[in-house]
Amino acid sequence: MASTDELLTLASVQEAHELIKPFIHQTPVLTSAYINSLASTPQTPESLSKTEWAGHPPANPTLRLHFKCENFQRIGAFKARGAFHAIERLKQSPGFDASRGVVTHSSGNHAQALSLAARESSIPAYIVMPSISNPSKVAATLSYGAQITFSGPTAPEREAAAQKIIDEKGAVLIPPYDHPHIICGQGTAALELLSQVSVPLDAVITPCGGGGLLSGTALACSESPATRVFGAEPSFQGADDGKRGYYSGQRIESVKSLTIGDGLRTPVGKIPWSIIYERRLVDGMFSVTEEQIKAAMRLVYERLKVVVEPSAVVGLAVALYNEDFRRMVEEEVGEKGWDLGVVFSGGNVSLAALGGLFEE
Amino acid sequence: MASTDELLTLASVQEAHELIKPFIHQTPVLTSAYINSLASTPQTPESLSKTEWAGHPPANPTLRLHFKCENFQRIGAFKARGAFHAIERLKQSPGFDASRGVVTHSSGNHAQALSLAARESSIPAYIVMPSISNPSKVAATLSYGAQITFSGPTAPEREAAAQKIIDEKGAVLIPPYDHPHIICGQGTAALELLSQVSVPLDAVITPCGGGGLLSGTALACSESPATRVFGAEPSFQGADDGKRGYYSGQRIESVKSLTIGDGLRTPVGKIPWSIIYERRLVDGMFSVTEEQIKAAMRLVYERLKVVVEPSAVVGLAVALYNEDFRRMVEEEVGEKGWDLGVVFSGGNVSLAALGGLFEE
Repeated sequence: MASTDELLTLASVQEAHELIKPFIHQTPVLTSAYINSLASTPQTPESLSKTEWAGHPPANPTLRLHFKCENFQRIGAFKARGAFHAIERLKQSPGFDASRGVVTHSSGNHAQALSLAARESSIPAYIVMPSISNPSKVAATLSYGAQITFSGPTAPEREAAAQKIIDEKGAVLIPPYDHPHIICGQGTAALELLSQVSVPLDAVITPCGGGGLLSGTALACSESPATRVFGAEPSFQGADDGKRGYYSGQRIESVKSLTIGDGLRTPVGKIPWSIIYERRLVDGMFSVTEEQIKAAMRLVYERLKVVVEPSAVVGLAVALYNEDFRRMVEEEVGEKGWDLGVVFSGGNVSLAALGGLFEE
Repeated sequence: MASTDELLTLASVQEAHELIKPFIHQTPVLTSAYINSLASTPQTPESLSKTEWAGHPPANPTLRLHFKCENFQRIGAFKARGAFHAIERLKQSPGFDASRGVVTHSSGNHAQALSLAARESSIPAYIVMPSISNPSKVAATLSYGAQITFSGPTAPEREAAAQKIIDEKGAVLIPPYDHPHIICGQGTAALELLSQVSVPLDAVITPCGGGGLLSGTALACSESPATRVFGAEPSFQGADDGKRGYYSGQRIESVKSLTIGDGLRTPVGKIPWSIIYERRLVDGMFSVTEEQIKAAMRLVYERLKVVVEPSAVVGLAVALYNEDFRRMVEEEVGEKGWDLGVVFSGGNVSLAALGGLFEE
């Protein structure tokens, strides 16, 4: 891993940022006095009654939250950062031939991000999607000029379809998270966040699916020892593979969860794991329930007035509702509290899907 | 009306802005290349098939839209502007006695706005609401420290309840739109918009319910002859009273519509009417269907990633779908097109209500 580790440093995230700046938005950082007051108020015994903290006095941390709004990023998610970085690096590589194109298998934000980034450099993008993909996601990816190949739903089927394109076209595979250039690109969101907030951040928390965003964030903060990094996951149907792996010392390689945080259904990749766990650049992992994700979404919509997808708010849900996290903050710093950076990863949710989540 | 007219000028909107600046947000102005391209593409014959333009070639205007985001205003709507202005003016009035308080009858954004503005000056706020009001609106108004009195649902019942408070407490009535100070306060949103956009605006379009926002906007633009002002309304169940009155020359005094644009169910007030129609400071009125409002909302959520209430997007819906408006733009300016300011009036919608609107 030595050669990969050398590519995975704060300096490499800073270089990534210089490369992608012309292509991405510096997204805003929002705050809400109301949400801070909720996060700094003990939960009710009722809300704790179904947790292992039932019967204990609720934690009383002080939290000032700084929301990095990657829902306003191009294609509506942080994935644009990694994709543009991978494309820029590819263009620098010796013998690069744009006509061969790039390929990935994804039905989500990475597919759209890679399609956009490739198009802006006039590189063909081949996207392998399961034939059962949501038509709106297919349409969105097509709108960025990609060529879509449908495959069966299993990983071997998708990988075989991608391999066929690699063999036939000479296309370069750009995976969604298990790739140094992707990881460094995703880390640029935290780099901006650290510079945009006028106070030093005590910690940053990001969602963790494949781990690209979390591990990139860890690199971005790796030379700021006062800024710790945490990962957040849904607990539903074992989507907290990152947390379970982190505390058992063994990466979990398979997840089958239908959590509403649909960007977080994948297991943590090998390279992200090496940063998150082996290099100990992430300080802890926390999980939240589906109801807690929905409650956090409701707050963001009704108070911040911005559109986020369910995956985006797991970090906020940890800050508001995860009693382990809240006790840690209270016990460590007391009334001084924490300035916590919270990365909202994206805002790609249809109103029909929202309707399904929140109809009464 | 002479004395009122003297109060209702660009200068009075500018004075209002100076007074309320410490209390309100200068909300951002957003743009979307994607929405501009949609607005600048002819509608399909199918989408025109149910209108009086069926069979005609669709208009092909060029529109660059600048969205003034009052959904990010305090209390989530432009109403904060008028309420803070009314309170500041009240504080300046001779013999003012804060302890008497202010009173209004409203179950919507004006109730919350007046409650907030009064609280920040330590003035009691009495709000008369129909006893059938939405509990979440009652809770929101209570959270700003107001004292709520419930009444029957009809206008005479609400007015009697308010009068009782005036008689007993000496409270000052601050109506939601039919009041010079409210109108000038609402006009400050357009004042900011004109200064925030780097190009001269060819026109501004705002929603029109009671007409406070539209008439205030007309005052703000009244000395910019190159900037025309338009009003937008839902057509459902006659909620386009402003348009019908404007083109018939007679103010319509009663509306009973359950349009999803619930902030726009009221008839235009007398003082707004004097500005909109009698002084000819508004250049035209346009209406849109419920489906067009929903389609515009969908675009704002999915592309701009910001939360708006249905009433907020009627201006955008006119720009996208109202063929009378689109023909006017095309015929007047051809390919040069218009820079059009579009005021998003507010973002107070619950996720449960959104769910009801958009579930599939």
